[in-house]
Formats: sequence, structure tokens, C-alpha cells
Amino acid sequence: MAEVGYNVAILGATGAVGTRLIQQLEQSNVPVKSIKLLASTRSAGKTLQFKQKDIVVEATTPESFDGIDLVLASGGGSVSKKFAPEAVKRGAVVVDNSSFWRMNDQVPLVVPEVNEDALYQHHGIIANPNCSTIQMVVALAPIKQQFGLKRVIVSTYQAASGAGQTAWQELMTQSQAYINGEEMTADILPVKGDKQHYPLAFNLLPQIDVFEDYGYTHEEWKMIHETKKIMFGDKNTKAIKVTATAVRVPVPIGHGETVYFETESGTQATAAGIQKALATADGVVLQDDPAHQVYPQPINAEGKRETFVGRVRPDVENDDSFHMWVVSDNLLKGAAWNTVQIAERLVALNLVRVPKDASALFPTEA
Amino acid sequence: MAEVGYNVAILGATGAVGTRLIQQLEQSNVPVKSIKLLASTRSAGKTLQFKQKDIVVEATTPESFDGIDLVLASGGGSVSKKFAPEAVKRGAVVVDNSSFWRMNDQVPLVVPEVNEDALYQHHGIIANPNCSTIQMVVALAPIKQQFGLKRVIVSTYQAASGAGQTAWQELMTQSQAYINGEEMTADILPVKGDKQHYPLAFNLLPQIDVFEDYGYTHEEWKMIHETKKIMFGDKNTKAIKVTATAVRVPVPIGHGETVYFETESGTQATAAGIQKALATADGVVLQDDPAHQVYPQPINAEGKRETFVGRVRPDVENDDSFHMWVVSDNLLKGAAWNTVQIAERLVALNLVRVPKDASALFPTEA
Repeated sequence: MAEVGYNVAILGATGAVGTRLIQQLEQSNVPVKSIKLLASTRSAGKTLQFKQKDIVVEATTPESFDGIDLVLASGGGSVSKKFAPEAVKRGAVVVDNSSFWRMNDQVPLVVPEVNEDALYQHHGIIANPNCSTIQMVVALAPIKQQFGLKRVIVSTYQAASGAGQTAWQELMTQSQAYINGEEMTADILPVKGDKQHYPLAFNLLPQIDVFEDYGYTHEEWKMIHETKKIMFGDKNTKAIKVTATAVRVPVPIGHGETVYFETESGTQATAAGIQKALATADGVVLQDDPAHQVYPQPINAEGKRETFVGRVRPDVENDDSFHMWVVSDNLLKGAAWNTVQIAERLVALNLVRVPKDASALFPTEA
Repeated sequence: MAEVGYNVAILGATGAVGTRLIQQLEQSNVPVKSIKLLASTRSAGKTLQFKQKDIVVEATTPESFDGIDLVLASGGGSVSKKFAPEAVKRGAVVVDNSSFWRMNDQVPLVVPEVNEDALYQHHGIIANPNCSTIQMVVALAPIKQQFGLKRVIVSTYQAASGAGQTAWQELMTQSQAYINGEEMTADILPVKGDKQHYPLAFNLLPQIDVFEDYGYTHEEWKMIHETKKIMFGDKNTKAIKVTATAVRVPVPIGHGETVYFETESGTQATAAGIQKALATADGVVLQDDPAHQVYPQPINAEGKRETFVGRVRPDVENDDSFHMWVVSDNLLKGAAWNTVQIAERLVALNLVRVPKDASALFPTEA
């Protein structure tokens, strides 16, 4: 068999997620014929490595995508808005880690363990969901499959790195200042583009992304709409009720979530049955042994691709209602690994090709 | 008018809560005739100050309570089990910060803003609730009063100091080690007396206190039963359903809580109506202005007596259901201030006296 492989470009290669995209791609079974690392003009010229080979980062232009088969994008919403159509027009399939394309009806929003089949409907762009959504739906999917799912109430404990490398660095700088008894400065968190900035170190910030309708943040709406789209194929479905509170905590890597959920009545769900379903589920590691103080912790999830679930137990006063505690590396399953995993599945399903109707995707941009 | 005042003893005076009991008592309107500071043999001999006067800490014996009118106790469960009856037998009223007496039917469990009237039923001991329960019921009380309350689902974000001064110190030592790239050692958290210890710095620990029935921790059961007893007078009432997940976060002082609640149907509760009720409630400060990024943060609550509430908003898919975010200084309203506040109310209501039927309280200990 002749050597086959894809010409791959990584867009936003120098960020916290971008560097992990390179690493996850190295460790994947995507056959890479050539690799191109793209970033903003500011980051162009930096040298990074792919499989021990130096690669100079290039500034992104529309022509950067000539001859490219597959783009893994993590450059942010405005970058993906601008360049994903340019890449698709040139015949590349884009797996996009930004939020820009996620709610587009023509764009599959995919977590392979949950809705791999949605990949067959792609028109050139596949969206990678929000980090806090991904780990939750990985844990909920086997429960839904066996017991049905009517309602979810989630509270998040989200790591600083979810807001990027500079937010993560800010947490560490503030932490040292606090320990030294010095004043903490805040320029990035809770939201870089918002008006006020507050210290995260040794503190809690109940704001992730900007505020929108009904007093919910954009992050909270993402969790609601993305969960519905991934699990039920419709961002506005009434088949499941989802509500969320998103809180930033002083942790560098690894999101935690308390997930309260209600199964379909009549399915006789029990905590033991849910644990059993989770124990054999794809991408899930059940860490649930209270007698031995075994439960998921961010510090143990860092660098791992799996979603860790524990503290599974019933609400003793409400039928068919349960708690669980879900932790995952927000930069891997929450971003880089899920993106590369989508690429692996596209390769396996022979879907690294732009269909003829791709231009329907971006009528205004075309 | 002749000088009146009480002979007060502080039990467990050297701990994180004990030192704050001294400070809160200094700033209270409890008339103090004399003060005695009591602790374990290990801490006896230390010198602390009360109103700028040096006081030598004494080792606690039953006779320590001779001539004492009022005891503020924060020495832990076994200390209160042993010494509270000794104090009451000698005519002292005990306000106890430990969990030992809280579920005793003869012991009022009091948050003055919520159930001050329960003080009239005391038999010599009044229990101070668990820190995470106190701030939650302060926020829920005005909502219950105006709109009724059927159901509560809470996730906590609890500070290290809730586990005492040594846990707080451990967080700070671990934080510096992490920043230095050194290994973190853990000897106290999550639970000093439990088998395994894990680092809290830059991590999350979904265990507070030991594991009990149904996979719930003792802390989670406390929140369930104490909330029922304080708000409905019965730790097992079915009038309200309460369930909880308690998580320790790397914050020194100030617990956060995402509180999801359901009001009585037909009361036409709205987020605006709830905000209005909270804005004028005793002990509550409403900090809820998303447009200006105003919401409670532990760093701003430290050293304050109030409970701070924000992020009030509806669950848009479930009737009569709402979210709020509650923050308070766990060492003040969660412990020292609530204890001293109870003492203030006992004084105001002329209840600093042991009733004749006190011995009914501890038939086995007597």
C-alpha cells in the first residue's frame, strides 16, 4: 500500500490549546504527510516542534490553506469566522475549537463518544464543543443511553487555563503576590474583553465569559445549548431541560463539575446501575470508592485524555434523581484531544473531504 | 443603673474560630464583666488579649466553669460533648459551635436572622450551625418568607479555613511548594482523621468530613438536616427537599455556594421579586449587577459579618425555579459572628439563664 497521509495545518498553534493540538496530533493515528503551523502575525517566526522536527510558525493568510486537507483550528472566534471559510473553499476540512460555528445548523458539534454519527453531515466545518460541555456529555451519554435523561443542573469549577495561557499565568503571578503579602493585579480574568478585572488567586469568580439574557453568562448558555445539540441534535429541544452556573476557581488545569440529573421514570435507575454504565463507557474512568476516599481530582486528571467520574449517588428525596462529580483536563478532552479525536474519526470514516454543497455553509462569507 | 454584665468563658480560644470569637465579642454589645479563655492543655499558658488586656489561656477542667454565666464554645465535638454539660450543671448557658449537640431535640439550632424564636426553648445549650448551612439559610429565609420554599439543591465551594487553622496553613505551604515546582505534602486535608490526605493547593477535593450513608459526606448530611431543622423546626421534615454536594476549594477564607431552589407554585416568584426580598433582608447584602460585573467574591467577604448574594436568575425551563450565588466569611457568619450574635440575642431576650429542666438534656452524662 502506498504511503497515504494528509496535509495538516494547525491554526492558533502557539496558544495553550495550540501547543497541545500539536502534541495530541503527534500521538494520534492521523497519518500526517505534512504539517503547517499558523498563528497571528505577532506569533509568526516562532519555532515549534512536530515529531522532533523544527517548524517555523507562519502568519495566517487565506493562501496558507492552499493544498491543505485538514485544519485543526484554535485561534479564537474571529479567526475561525474569517479563515475557516477560506480553508473550506480551498478544499480543506476544518475542525474548529472556537465557539463561532457551533450553533450553525450546517455544522456538526461533535464529541466522538456521544454523537460521532453527526460527522456524516459535515459541510467542511466540524465544531469542537466548549470544554465544560464536553466532559459533562461524555459522562451523561452512557446514562442517557441506559436510563434516559430528562433534566440536568450543573455547577462548574473551571480552571484558569480555560481562559487561555495568559489567564493561567496571571493566576500563578497573583498567587505568588498573595503569599508575599503584596497586592494582586488583575488584567485578564474574569473576561479579557470585559470592563472589570478581578484576582482569581485564592478567590472565586462566578463569571465566565460575558453576561447575556436572563442574567446568564455566555458560558452558561453554551452549556445549555451545546448539550442539547450534542445529545438531542437540536439546540432548542425540549426533550431535556438543562441549566447551569459557571464559576472560575484558582486551579491551573482541570475543570470540576457537580452534575445533578434526572433520568426517565420507569427505567429503574440506581446509583449502582449508573456506576456500572459509567465503568464501561468510552472515554470515562469511574473513580468512585468513598470507603477508600477515591474520587476525581483535577491534579490527577492533568495530562489525561479521559473524563473522570465519581461521587455518584441518589438524591434520597427525589425519584430518579442523582448527583455525580466530573473532572477532566480542559485543555485535552475539553479542547485539543477532542479536536484531534474528531480528526481521527474523520480519517477512519473517510470523511476528510469537502462535499460539493459546502458553500451553503457560508453564503455571506463566500 | 448599676453595672451589669456576664462572666464569659471562651472554650477553644486559640483556634481560627476561637481568636475570632474573642474579636467578635469585643465588638459586640454583650456586656462582659469578666472573661476567661480556655483551651486544651497543649495551648494553656499562651497569652491572648481581650480589649487590650492580656489574658493567659487556661487548660479546661469542669471547675473552669464555676461562676461562669455564658460559654462560647469552639473546641470541637468531643470537647463540647464533655464540657458543655459541666458548664450547664454549674449554671452557665453554652453557645456551642461544634456539631455534637446540633441534632439533639432539646437543643435549639439557631441563626438569628432565621429562627431567633427557637432560643426561648433552650435548656442550657444552644447550637451554632455548620458554616455552609448558615450562609445558605440566611439567603433562603427571606425567599421562603415571601414565596415559600419546596426544594434546594446546593453545591459548595468551601474554603480551607473551614477545616481549621492547620488546614489553612497547609494550603499556603502547598501553594508555595507548587509555585516552586516542589512536591506538595498533605497531612490534614481533606479530613484530618481520615486515612488518605491529598493536596488542596491548585486542586479541588470533593470530600468534606467523612463518608456516610448513600455516599454522602457528613458535611452534606449536615447541610440537609440542619437546613430542615433551622427553617422548618424538624431535621426530617418532608416540607422541604434538600440535597447537597460539598467541595473544598483552594481559597483560605470565604465559602461560595451555588444554590438552586424551587419556590411554592402560585406565589408568582420572579428573579426581580427575589432580589427585592434579599435587598432588604437582615444580614444579607445583595451584590447583583451583571451589567457592571457585580457579584459576591470570597476576597471581598473576608472580615465581614454579612452574607453576600448575587447571580439571582430563573431556570428558564422550570417554573418557580431559580439560581443564586451565596458567599460569606466562614469564620465569621459561619462560626464566630453567628455564635456571638446568638449571645447578643440571648442577652436582649433575657435568656442567659439555665432553666430548671436542664438536666433532661444529658441524662447519660449527668
